Amino acid sequence: MKLTGNHWIGSQPSAQSNDIFRAGNPATGDSLEPDFHEATESEINDAVAAASRAFDPFRNKLAESRADFLEAIAEETLALGDDFLERTSAETGYPLARCTAERDRAIAHTRQFAQLIREGSWVDARIDLPDLTRKPFPKPDVRSLMQPVGPVAIFGASNFPIAISVLGADTMSALASGCPVVIKAHPAHPGTCEMAANAVLRAAEKTRMPDGVFSLLHGRGHEVGTQLVQHPDITAAAFTGSLAGGRALFDVANQRPVPIPFYAEMGSVNPLFILPGALKTRATQLADGFVVALTQGVGQFCTNPGLVLGLESDDWSRFADLTEERLAATTPATMLHAGIHKAYRSGLEARYENESLELLGRSSTDASDERLEAAAHVFRTTQQGLLDDPTLFDELFGPVSTFAGCGGPEDFVEIAEKLEGSLSATIHGTEADLARHKDLISVLQKKTGRLIFNGFPVGLEVCHSIHHGGPYPATTFSRFTSVGTRGIERFVRPVCYQDWPDSQLPVELQNANPRGVLRMINGHRKRDEVS
Amino acid sequence: MKLTGNHWIGSQPSAQSNDIFRAGNPATGDSLEPDFHEATESEINDAVAAASRAFDPFRNKLAESRADFLEAIAEETLALGDDFLERTSAETGYPLARCTAERDRAIAHTRQFAQLIREGSWVDARIDLPDLTRKPFPKPDVRSLMQPVGPVAIFGASNFPIAISVLGADTMSALASGCPVVIKAHPAHPGTCEMAANAVLRAAEKTRMPDGVFSLLHGRGHEVGTQLVQHPDITAAAFTGSLAGGRALFDVANQRPVPIPFYAEMGSVNPLFILPGALKTRATQLADGFVVALTQGVGQFCTNPGLVLGLESDDWSRFADLTEERLAATTPATMLHAGIHKAYRSGLEARYENESLELLGRSSTDASDERLEAAAHVFRTTQQGLLDDPTLFDELFGPVSTFAGCGGPEDFVEIAEKLEGSLSATIHGTEADLARHKDLISVLQKKTGRLIFNGFPVGLEVCHSIHHGGPYPATTFSRFTSVGTRGIERFVRPVCYQDWPDSQLPVELQNANPRGVLRMINGHRKRDEVS
Repeated sequence: MKLTGNHWIGSQPSAQSNDIFRAGNPATGDSLEPDFHEATESEINDAVAAASRAFDPFRNKLAESRADFLEAIAEETLALGDDFLERTSAETGYPLARCTAERDRAIAHTRQFAQLIREGSWVDARIDLPDLTRKPFPKPDVRSLMQPVGPVAIFGASNFPIAISVLGADTMSALASGCPVVIKAHPAHPGTCEMAANAVLRAAEKTRMPDGVFSLLHGRGHEVGTQLVQHPDITAAAFTGSLAGGRALFDVANQRPVPIPFYAEMGSVNPLFILPGALKTRATQLADGFVVALTQGVGQFCTNPGLVLGLESDDWSRFADLTEERLAATTPATMLHAGIHKAYRSGLEARYENESLELLGRSSTDASDERLEAAAHVFRTTQQGLLDDPTLFDELFGPVSTFAGCGGPEDFVEIAEKLEGSLSATIHGTEADLARHKDLISVLQKKTGRLIFNGFPVGLEVCHSIHHGGPYPATTFSRFTSVGTRGIERFVRPVCYQDWPDSQLPVELQNANPRGVLRMINGHRKRDEVS
Repeated sequence: MKLTGNHWIGSQPSAQSNDIFRAGNPATGDSLEPDFHEATESEINDAVAAASRAFDPFRNKLAESRADFLEAIAEETLALGDDFLERTSAETGYPLARCTAERDRAIAHTRQFAQLIREGSWVDARIDLPDLTRKPFPKPDVRSLMQPVGPVAIFGASNFPIAISVLGADTMSALASGCPVVIKAHPAHPGTCEMAANAVLRAAEKTRMPDGVFSLLHGRGHEVGTQLVQHPDITAAAFTGSLAGGRALFDVANQRPVPIPFYAEMGSVNPLFILPGALKTRATQLADGFVVALTQGVGQFCTNPGLVLGLESDDWSRFADLTEERLAATTPATMLHAGIHKAYRSGLEARYENESLELLGRSSTDASDERLEAAAHVFRTTQQGLLDDPTLFDELFGPVSTFAGCGGPEDFVEIAEKLEGSLSATIHGTEADLARHKDLISVLQKKTGRLIFNGFPVGLEVCHSIHHGGPYPATTFSRFTSVGTRGIERFVRPVCYQDWPDSQLPVELQNANPRGVLRMINGHRKRDEVS
């Protein structure tokens, strides 16, 4: 398709401002056509007004129709073909295989949300039947279920231009719930955003969704996003990105006259604890796996393993040596954009200058600054060095990690206690190791959203049980996930009906249960009718 | 029992400060023994430290043990006997019958949470089974469930000294989930709080819960609560009270270096829409019911009906006349404390002076200022008068309401659009009325947490399906309820286990499903084992 550089206010293109920008190819420095426009205040207002108008007709659609819409989005995404993948690759420096994998993941989660709402039980319908004979007061008929909150603002991430952007689980879970969506496109991949938006809008048209159910706005700075979050008709927002950006918008959302939930996923340090049993039997395999996990996607994952802890021993030294070897063989690769590259470079400099760190290993090939390349690095410190320097617990976005050798299991616990909230924590070991380190596991359970055994945190499984969240600063609200079907819980709230006539109830609460959903009836979950 | 006036840091009494205060009897102005002490910073820190120490042993207790603890609280509450009810009555001006009803409600919800966790399915256990043959990557084993967040701060309400205070659903849902609780006692009923705390502590001892699982702190101003919310080891807070107080603490919670969720329920205007079919056939019954709902508990309910809307007609005038008659026969009664009484008096004065309002009726008996009494009042305005004066949409806490006569169904919609978020909205009418006013219902669904048909919003049913929440300013977060078993969702977060050994998993995620809970397995809810 031909890119226009327009915003899309529902199905209507708009480009009011002369303040323009372009995407760049991070590998070549070339600027990519066309010009994109900074959204004006009136365009932001128009997009939210269109979403507000669409809310009633959209939420009143049958769940089956919204499922059709999502499935049509998946089809239209596929139909974008290679043009789409090539544009994403040009805007991000990602190889086509990665872009394809992301596209397939986006299609998978889109279809998963379609299935979820087609089945219907996610609305958590509850019925407590009346008892008119109860003393001293008759018991009323009380029923409730989850309903959509209203227009939602969504901010995509730079590091997943397809799977956590316009076509991300944030968008799909909001649409699945019945909330219209206004997207703030990421300025590093605006062309990818426009193409993806086009797929969504085409699907909306084909499945006769109300105009305004989806809009796309461009902007290069903070202003568009801030204004969007401040708009009185936006009822919730979801964001994936940096701690600084996420916290700033979280503060804006909470300082509104009417505060709204701002769900930000902001990354984390994702520690790996390598217990003795694993080091003894699988050092080679571990070094292989670790270096792949560290360097995949040029280390640009929220779940990149930024800290590796083991017990000082010959096995630990051998693992370090094996890691050094494998690092040397890695090839520097282009990062997403100049801002990320600059932050990585200055973060590395600080680590080189840090006296409590020494370089354990790095890619033997130099990175090209011109091509915004990053070389993989691993630093090494002692347990005390780590405990004395809180900056080593902070995430540095890119293919970099720190090894710290500890004296004993109690030192693991002391370090775990110092961790900030994290999306994940990983243990490598035997089952016996796990039983021996119960105190460590207990601390990690309080600090993280996902515990992994003998695996690596990157490469998130898209499923019902996945949790991609964790205590602050991993996210602004550890109760919610941004990946997996539980993500839909962010965009709904319970609505309760007391003594409401059956014919006027939402279908999932009606006596006959025509959709056959699982409901809680007087405290028991069943699919039965009630009378 | 003999009141001590102490704080309770777990099982340890403390009273470091010489800054003391007493409860007062609002009806007599008498000060009530003993002296209570303002909590010091070190007492606040001690209470939170005790809660933090208790967290691991408490969350690791079997769910059955926590259920035993809750049931013991219910028993110990009953065992407080008449002393408890008499102290509550003295501190609040509520008659003993009301105190008894509240006590019984607290016992009911405490037992309900015990049942909920004994059954166990509330943890929302999810399992996605592995597939090692999947291409291009094997599918991992992913499981997740809800786990408690950590020590929780709870603020009771003045208007429910038993059922929404120390023994409230906030406390019980937090304890049920596995979170230790630190309560900031309400300064208007500190004796009730100490007696209730005593019941909880006795139950904790009898069922061998870790010391520190429950603490009680006193304080008369904002300082103690603010420090508690700011404490880095507090992980969530729940509050019922005024908009000003709730918003101030919400802001404190969000401005922390590590923000925490602050769940505040702050009351609302709870509009009643009386449709023509109801006015025609049930005017007398409606006037009876309305005046009872307005004056019950001296109008001191979050769900008090503050706005009544009808279509101008002879029926509407007759309903107003009937209401006037019934109001005249009501008896003024003592409000909870001087602060609430003063706010009610000045709110009434503003309404008397408001030129768009006229008095429709009031209690024919004068209220005694000395006894902090409130007389029921209803004012009347036109539709335009209401639309022109945003203050009439604000809650005035006490037995006061405003009637507004409208021209037609579309005026109802216009007024509904102007409503702020509300805990409830009530419709009186026939089923045919309801079908004719679909647009009104549609707006109300977006503005409120609970829709009531031919009933009154006061008198909340304690059950699984109840929702006591609603869009801001009714609450700070419309996703959650403070009453009913869904309340437990505020104090948990998902924790996910990837490829974790079965023997080390939380019991609800183990293959054999020894507790027999309902789980989502590969997307399907069942109680089966997995292998």
